[in-house]
Amino acid sequence: MKIPTFKDIESAHERIRPYIHRTPVLTCSTINGMTGAELYFKCENFQKGGAFKARGATNAVFSLTGEKAKRGVATHSSGNHAAALSLTAKKRGIKAYVAMPRTAPEMKKRIVAGYGAEIRFCEPTVESREETCRNIIEETGATLIPSYNDFYIISGHGTVARELLDQAGDLDVMLTCVGGGGLLSGISIWAKHAKPGIRIIGGCPENADNSYRSFVTGKLQPPVPPNTIADGLLMPLGDLTFKIIRQYADEIVTVTEEEIIKAMQLIWERMKIIIEPSSAVAMAAVTKKRKELKNKKIGVILSGGNVDLKRLPF
Amino acid sequence: MKIPTFKDIESAHERIRPYIHRTPVLTCSTINGMTGAELYFKCENFQKGGAFKARGATNAVFSLTGEKAKRGVATHSSGNHAAALSLTAKKRGIKAYVAMPRTAPEMKKRIVAGYGAEIRFCEPTVESREETCRNIIEETGATLIPSYNDFYIISGHGTVARELLDQAGDLDVMLTCVGGGGLLSGISIWAKHAKPGIRIIGGCPENADNSYRSFVTGKLQPPVPPNTIADGLLMPLGDLTFKIIRQYADEIVTVTEEEIIKAMQLIWERMKIIIEPSSAVAMAAVTKKRKELKNKKIGVILSGGNVDLKRLPF
Repeated sequence: MKIPTFKDIESAHERIRPYIHRTPVLTCSTINGMTGAELYFKCENFQKGGAFKARGATNAVFSLTGEKAKRGVATHSSGNHAAALSLTAKKRGIKAYVAMPRTAPEMKKRIVAGYGAEIRFCEPTVESREETCRNIIEETGATLIPSYNDFYIISGHGTVARELLDQAGDLDVMLTCVGGGGLLSGISIWAKHAKPGIRIIGGCPENADNSYRSFVTGKLQPPVPPNTIADGLLMPLGDLTFKIIRQYADEIVTVTEEEIIKAMQLIWERMKIIIEPSSAVAMAAVTKKRKELKNKKIGVILSGGNVDLKRLPF
Repeated sequence: MKIPTFKDIESAHERIRPYIHRTPVLTCSTINGMTGAELYFKCENFQKGGAFKARGATNAVFSLTGEKAKRGVATHSSGNHAAALSLTAKKRGIKAYVAMPRTAPEMKKRIVAGYGAEIRFCEPTVESREETCRNIIEETGATLIPSYNDFYIISGHGTVARELLDQAGDLDVMLTCVGGGGLLSGISIWAKHAKPGIRIIGGCPENADNSYRSFVTGKLQPPVPPNTIADGLLMPLGDLTFKIIRQYADEIVTVTEEEIIKAMQLIWERMKIIIEPSSAVAMAAVTKKRKELKNKKIGVILSGGNVDLKRLPF
């Protein structure tokens, strides 16, 4: 179980740069005024496929040998990783197979299909996803590209922090949402390398708090069925992401569903950008820790923008 | 009735630059693929106050003498101009009075009030707005800042085209929505000065087509009560904007409500940015003229992003 280093993130960045967006960093004077801090929003909602997931998927797919690649890639995902993998496979000219829960948002299904992947629907449980995915691989010989608990995926995601520090300059704090922990792992490794004094905070829904419970107890906790609007954060930490987060992250904060929705509405209304509920978890965590974060220079990663416009919470 | 020249737009730009955003220009490969053209979206939805209106208002307010300014400014507006004027007045440290239709979106009312303006509600008719505004001016001695049919407003709005041509390089076509015509007037003057061969197209709702009827008949037509979701385009052309548009614009295209909503959803879903229906009119016009615009390099102005999230059309 090898932990990526900053050099792996550098290599990943070189590898993926031709295929991904260097997403913009936006600021909002109204939100700065409300929080008393200086916030720099890294807009991965504008990333290819609508989420940061393109970074890890691109790194994983373009790291495969030609021989392996030609049999295709497979994954199980609630959506964003699936979209990213499908898009990346298309770019490499190979086939992508996706096991996707029937309950995934329509928007995400449409996007994955639009990128030309073959979708096989399963039940919304980890067991059903994994089984469906195993069947695909047996049939086709495709390579499994996990959605987060993976060396290449984490290395790819770490590139978000590299760009953010480059774009926003010195930051006191970097903050992102955490579900399976791939993004938080990657950005922690890079940020603590580039700026050892930086504080790394993960935000998670109270109703999907596997990462929080694992972090504070120091032991990877068994998952409890999540029940949150933040549909990108339904997965529990993996053994690799848990290890990295324990080593590099400073804190995990939980937020309520109401806080998530409020943060989402704030960003939609004030910044005029579309973020999905998972992204709002990071903003909700900033609001919750307002007092402590006052006058700090904070990088907030907006992880994605794939929302079903027919099912908005406000 | 003096028509601004490119020099007035240059002066306006110098005057307003410290107070406004140089908004980004975004592109979207999916939408380029769908239209077969190269689109450059000028994101005035990210402008201060959420719309391009900040440009004209800032130019008008900061052109006032100290003596005049200190008695405040007044306007009647369906929302975006009012927000812009309130924000600008606050920056100059003077009072803003706004006559606003009771039926304006809640979001727009909240924003105007949030910027510290004094709102007086009126009926949603031109007569009631104008009367309420006259009363305010008699009482307070405030200066009327019209929302579009005005030399300073048009000069300020023209700066959008200056930035867009600077950011996107050579364009074959520039396209924006048209209601009262302040934005279309301003950008036409600049664009035809900077690139005489450029084609200037205005998009308007079929259900609020005063500009279209006036343009094609060559005579300023009496307004017909508008009935469109594009609530920023409810006003008819003014005598000044009509004169400018006749002189500088090449075409006005009408689009249906359905086309507007479809274009709005496309931009929300694919570009992950929030635009109001008026902005979508410009995109709908691109879609409508797809065949003619194929392979062209097109600047599309997204005029604003103030949407009531509780009243979305999809």
